Amino acid sequence: MDIKQFVYDKAVEAKKGARELGRASSQDKNKALLKMAALIRERAETLKTENDKDIVAAKEKGLTPAMVDRLLLNDERIEEMALGLEQVAALPDPVGEVTGMWERPNKLKVGRMRVPIGVISIIYESRPNVTADATALCLKAGNAVLLKGGSEAINSNRAIVDILRAAISEAGLHEGAVTFLDTPDRQAVQEMLKLEGIVDLVIPRGGEGLIRAVSENSRIPVLKHYKGVCHVFVDRAADMDMAESVVINAKVQRPGTCNAMETLLVDGPVAGEFLPRVISKLRAEGVTTIKGCAKSRQIVPDMEEALDADYHNEYLELAMSVKVVSDMQDAMDHIDTYSSAHTESIITRDYARAMRFVREVDSSSVMVNASTRFADGFQYGLGAEIGIATDKLHARGPMGLTELTCQKFIVFGNGQVRS
Amino acid sequence: MDIKQFVYDKAVEAKKGARELGRASSQDKNKALLKMAALIRERAETLKTENDKDIVAAKEKGLTPAMVDRLLLNDERIEEMALGLEQVAALPDPVGEVTGMWERPNKLKVGRMRVPIGVISIIYESRPNVTADATALCLKAGNAVLLKGGSEAINSNRAIVDILRAAISEAGLHEGAVTFLDTPDRQAVQEMLKLEGIVDLVIPRGGEGLIRAVSENSRIPVLKHYKGVCHVFVDRAADMDMAESVVINAKVQRPGTCNAMETLLVDGPVAGEFLPRVISKLRAEGVTTIKGCAKSRQIVPDMEEALDADYHNEYLELAMSVKVVSDMQDAMDHIDTYSSAHTESIITRDYARAMRFVREVDSSSVMVNASTRFADGFQYGLGAEIGIATDKLHARGPMGLTELTCQKFIVFGNGQVRS
Repeated sequence: MDIKQFVYDKAVEAKKGARELGRASSQDKNKALLKMAALIRERAETLKTENDKDIVAAKEKGLTPAMVDRLLLNDERIEEMALGLEQVAALPDPVGEVTGMWERPNKLKVGRMRVPIGVISIIYESRPNVTADATALCLKAGNAVLLKGGSEAINSNRAIVDILRAAISEAGLHEGAVTFLDTPDRQAVQEMLKLEGIVDLVIPRGGEGLIRAVSENSRIPVLKHYKGVCHVFVDRAADMDMAESVVINAKVQRPGTCNAMETLLVDGPVAGEFLPRVISKLRAEGVTTIKGCAKSRQIVPDMEEALDADYHNEYLELAMSVKVVSDMQDAMDHIDTYSSAHTESIITRDYARAMRFVREVDSSSVMVNASTRFADGFQYGLGAEIGIATDKLHARGPMGLTELTCQKFIVFGNGQVRS
Repeated sequence: MDIKQFVYDKAVEAKKGARELGRASSQDKNKALLKMAALIRERAETLKTENDKDIVAAKEKGLTPAMVDRLLLNDERIEEMALGLEQVAALPDPVGEVTGMWERPNKLKVGRMRVPIGVISIIYESRPNVTADATALCLKAGNAVLLKGGSEAINSNRAIVDILRAAISEAGLHEGAVTFLDTPDRQAVQEMLKLEGIVDLVIPRGGEGLIRAVSENSRIPVLKHYKGVCHVFVDRAADMDMAESVVINAKVQRPGTCNAMETLLVDGPVAGEFLPRVISKLRAEGVTTIKGCAKSRQIVPDMEEALDADYHNEYLELAMSVKVVSDMQDAMDHIDTYSSAHTESIITRDYARAMRFVREVDSSSVMVNASTRFADGFQYGLGAEIGIATDKLHARGPMGLTELTCQKFIVFGNGQVRS
């Protein structure tokens, strides 16, 4: 197979799908989404049979149980896919919204209208549910998807795509709107990343290695999410009970997520009071590794020593770093140096410092008196989340449906010419 | 000189400038801008002396008179630079604007705040005024600039940068906010384009060759503007006098600009009436080359034949293509295939077709009954223009100050934790 030609043909098919879908009504898009959900339930047995091929192959290849589990489609996960499609159908359609319109002195009316981006390529790893979840969001916002899943899930992904395309067809839309790069050839991604002008946006979903590889080789804009090294800063004017409750929640409620706290910064004047109680509570909650700076180890001696590299670390488990800072400026300087610019929270009762922290900290989410765990599209009320962008262009932080659109200018005149 | 280290050091200096500038008040930024304008006027003689070195070198190298003219700084152009800086100082500051805030069921207040992007690299060709113009816009939006101008303007650019930095200093801001890659080494751009994480955005300003080279080699997001192949579609329900006036204006008012019309599309039923009069008028206005399809040449025989490639052509002079289409769908299909997605206008009195054209045409500006020449930041009332984006991510169409910012999420709580 000529992989270059194969990928090009698929992308062109997606482009055709995007043109039709961009003009589709909300009603038709929702009809397709609901039909997808119905067909996924109807064909659950087929999905499980196809998925089983991937599971058998994965076990033969000696993948770890955790990796095999990520691949698995059981009744519960199939139902979750169907529910996800129905939830997206119920969300408001962002396309066509006029976000502003103003009149110029020559009576020209100038405004901005939300329109689809076009063809969005989703590059992902082993979880087959991404096939349905990402398609739902892209499609609702009027975009065609060009899917490239992990080769270990190829039978599952193919079966899901067959269902999604059947539903698209039944809703009277162009099948190209859901296009699948059905090949295990790794070169396919490289070829796709060159198709500037056909593919409009790439969203890689997976580990840091995948994201870096995509980002470094792409000529197409990439919306990416590296890691989350999130900080909670307990200011000298914090309510200590609130600080304890937020710090515990930010670290232990779900430590494997990108919005969990990795480093606790404590203001010098309250470190002697706050650190012993919070660390004892963290240990009680199962946090086994706590690495501290010299000052914090003077207060709580049984901590490991934190090295510079530890402050860059995204633990993703019940482990964390601690630092005593001299004041808020010191805390913000630490964040400037070590943060991944994902989410930071200050705990304080001081109005001026709260407002200054919010204004000056350059991260995708900046919080006052709240757990970093809220940095999430659903928690923010976006209704959906395709990912969390740690870059600054186009989208920053949790991305919902509107981040899958762009805005064009629309101009209404009555014969104006320029002099 | 180790060019890699040189570029890295400069970028890090810009990053330091960006951190300080991002927190600066509007007042301090405006003070710097006004001081820049004053110093440019004060040191006009120095600027002309330094500029003369570039002019002499350009003539020795045998550059064309047009190229030499682009390099020239005379009293008028120096005054324009100073005025430009003052105009930007007078614009509202986009930084800190909260564009929306809502309350979640748990009483968390979630909003979005405009903040600077960080370090913006401007890569440009021979016009030295870009040094001041681009700096003004980036700085007002709180961004540091990392400037790389054409080597033929290096003495002029260096002199302008000296002034801008002196003003920055006098206003009490960090000089890194205006950083100049003072080297004629072409490798400098290649090295800079690798500095993902230090440089946040690249804006190339120049010809298609420069823009392609930057875009293909950059790991940093690029806001780019390719060409403008703009269309006017004269619908069967057009007011013929209005159509004539708009078509003439879109083509002849300033044919060298990207928003000038390159192709006229005429609806079949009115082609017999409209084409003879408009083409006779276009010729009277000095349009010498008009290339038509077979149908249009049946109506106006003395046109050249339009080849497929002509419909992709951005003439940028008093020349154009013509096509008779069978209906609006045919016109939109032509635009889909040949447009650069810059600006298209429909001339019609038919409400339904006007609204459908606006909704379905996928270009950065879509107009009804207006000249394409209005696609411009100043004409749209943005107050400024750093360029016109023909891509879809982050910004599309004319880019003003707000397009030089991004939005972060801000969250105000009272101790909320996630359950």
